[in-house]
Amino acid sequence: MSSQAKATLQEIRDAVEIELAAFLKEQSKFLVSISSDLAPVAQALSSFLLDSGKRLRPLFAYCGYVSTGAEVTAPIIRAIASLELLQACALIHDDLMDGSDMRRGKPSIHRHFESLHVQDELEGFAPAYGSAAAVLLGDLALVWSNQMLNSAGLTPKQINDVMPIYDEMRTELMAGQFLDIHEQTQKRADLNRSITIARYKSGKYTIERPLLIGAALSGAQSAELFAALSAYGLPLGEAFQYRDDLLGVFGEPSITGKPAGDDLREGKRTVLIALTDKASTEVMRETSRKYFGAPDLDEHGVKILQEIIVSTGAKEQLESMIDELTKQALTAADNELIGENAHPLLLELAKIATKRSA
Amino acid sequence: MSSQAKATLQEIRDAVEIELAAFLKEQSKFLVSISSDLAPVAQALSSFLLDSGKRLRPLFAYCGYVSTGAEVTAPIIRAIASLELLQACALIHDDLMDGSDMRRGKPSIHRHFESLHVQDELEGFAPAYGSAAAVLLGDLALVWSNQMLNSAGLTPKQINDVMPIYDEMRTELMAGQFLDIHEQTQKRADLNRSITIARYKSGKYTIERPLLIGAALSGAQSAELFAALSAYGLPLGEAFQYRDDLLGVFGEPSITGKPAGDDLREGKRTVLIALTDKASTEVMRETSRKYFGAPDLDEHGVKILQEIIVSTGAKEQLESMIDELTKQALTAADNELIGENAHPLLLELAKIATKRSA
Repeated sequence: MSSQAKATLQEIRDAVEIELAAFLKEQSKFLVSISSDLAPVAQALSSFLLDSGKRLRPLFAYCGYVSTGAEVTAPIIRAIASLELLQACALIHDDLMDGSDMRRGKPSIHRHFESLHVQDELEGFAPAYGSAAAVLLGDLALVWSNQMLNSAGLTPKQINDVMPIYDEMRTELMAGQFLDIHEQTQKRADLNRSITIARYKSGKYTIERPLLIGAALSGAQSAELFAALSAYGLPLGEAFQYRDDLLGVFGEPSITGKPAGDDLREGKRTVLIALTDKASTEVMRETSRKYFGAPDLDEHGVKILQEIIVSTGAKEQLESMIDELTKQALTAADNELIGENAHPLLLELAKIATKRSA
Repeated sequence: MSSQAKATLQEIRDAVEIELAAFLKEQSKFLVSISSDLAPVAQALSSFLLDSGKRLRPLFAYCGYVSTGAEVTAPIIRAIASLELLQACALIHDDLMDGSDMRRGKPSIHRHFESLHVQDELEGFAPAYGSAAAVLLGDLALVWSNQMLNSAGLTPKQINDVMPIYDEMRTELMAGQFLDIHEQTQKRADLNRSITIARYKSGKYTIERPLLIGAALSGAQSAELFAALSAYGLPLGEAFQYRDDLLGVFGEPSITGKPAGDDLREGKRTVLIALTDKASTEVMRETSRKYFGAPDLDEHGVKILQEIIVSTGAKEQLESMIDELTKQALTAADNELIGENAHPLLLELAKIATKRSA
């Protein structure tokens, strides 16, 4: 990555990818040295990490780091790249819990191992093998994320500064994920609860915490800078999740890499659904109850639910909320404490995190 | 813990318990500050960690630490106690993958949350809620284990010395767990593969690695000391797993905290089963195929399989292997490099890890 101070997002992504590939190659070698039966594990995780991914969390961590004007080094790239492995854990376990068949246009990890079981004509029950593999590959990704950070070559001071935020972020992520699955067991949607979930399982974890991790790695001590980054990251994180909620209901499969209306089939109690429920008539609510969360929900059912969501005004309302939150974030990005190396990247990332297409 | 240099196992266990309780209290407070819906998560993890547990891994880490004559401090107790949280992750995810109903005489975590779902008359499918909760509570235990270690108050040098072993151990654990579930999909039992699994999923992880972690925390640099600890830990770790295998087939439910013959019902391809298969007649093999791994295996079926295992001589053979491995470990413990603070504890722990009753 030449001229790091003015690196483009694509250059940062490339640098992250190189470090991830090197780490995964080394870990794969270690796994296969234990047993050749671990080759499919190494292969599946490497492909999951390297074939795609927007690298949002490393990019935000990068911005947090350069916001102080600090010089980017190889250990920093390795440290921020490790966040992709944490995200891999979250996605693999999320797909397992939601029973999602697809991720990034390919079979999810539990489905992949289920297929291997069938293809290799193994003994036992293929779905159970797929589920167990997904539990363990997620665990391994979580361990490797931490290992990649531990072995990045950071100084003791950097380790000491970053770990409290890193650990808090990981607890928040798991807490948010639990609240998400718990919400689906509640009798009624609830706007406040759904907002809390969006914040913890995604908003803070995707944007604010990575920014703060980057700033901490740079040795920043200023509470004002951390506050400025949070003022940008928290609203943008929420906006990011709401965009994701809209894509989960209205997104094109070719762009989202998931079947149309997947969130409706899974009965995800998002803010979009809470807004819809609030503005629904009793008849609409009756209809929603029939289709929402039905595992066999077809195109027709998806369309009916989409129509209800649009007709209640919930879609429009959420679009306004995204606009408002994004505006807040952009205003916060103008804070003079945030250096010129980070500012243009933050503006660009705000667009990417909230844009309508994917 | 008074007079640390001569602490008894029970005193060490008590000190570990105090640190675990303090950490869990703090983390529980943090969870509930996010949402009161997380109270059952905090409660379930605290009860899982504090109601029982032999604390084997902290005890071995303690021995590794005092083997160099180093003075025990509060950060060291916190650091070794964190291994219990890693073990909690392993057990919670293991029970989920194996579909085990019981753990330590109580419902396993997925069954516990399934029961909460039924009891609170929640919406949706109770077993799916239980499974998702177990995935996340295991993840949280894995994160907390690392957080407890990170925040133990270790010096930068201690962190730097311990992390490579810690990370390698965690990768080995997940690798061993994968091989374990993969083995159940193979057409035939295989002695060598089963031995590898016993080593990785349990032996190294339970005994050798904790010993080395303790030694690394003490600042030990001597390759000879590490080798001496491994010479004790590796055979004893294997013996420990073989004892566990025997208890999984012949153990008393009142002592194991699990139903009789649970490993037979789950179709665990242990070394005991590989030895049995090797020495079976074709008729025995035919009978085994009928009962082994049957989810509805009853007392009668358990008895038939037990009889086959005994009559092939596999049980006796494994008992001899345990004796032989334990002897090796005890001889290795006599190495003069292992200090007098560790030596008697290592002898006592060897008995506990391999004793017949539990």
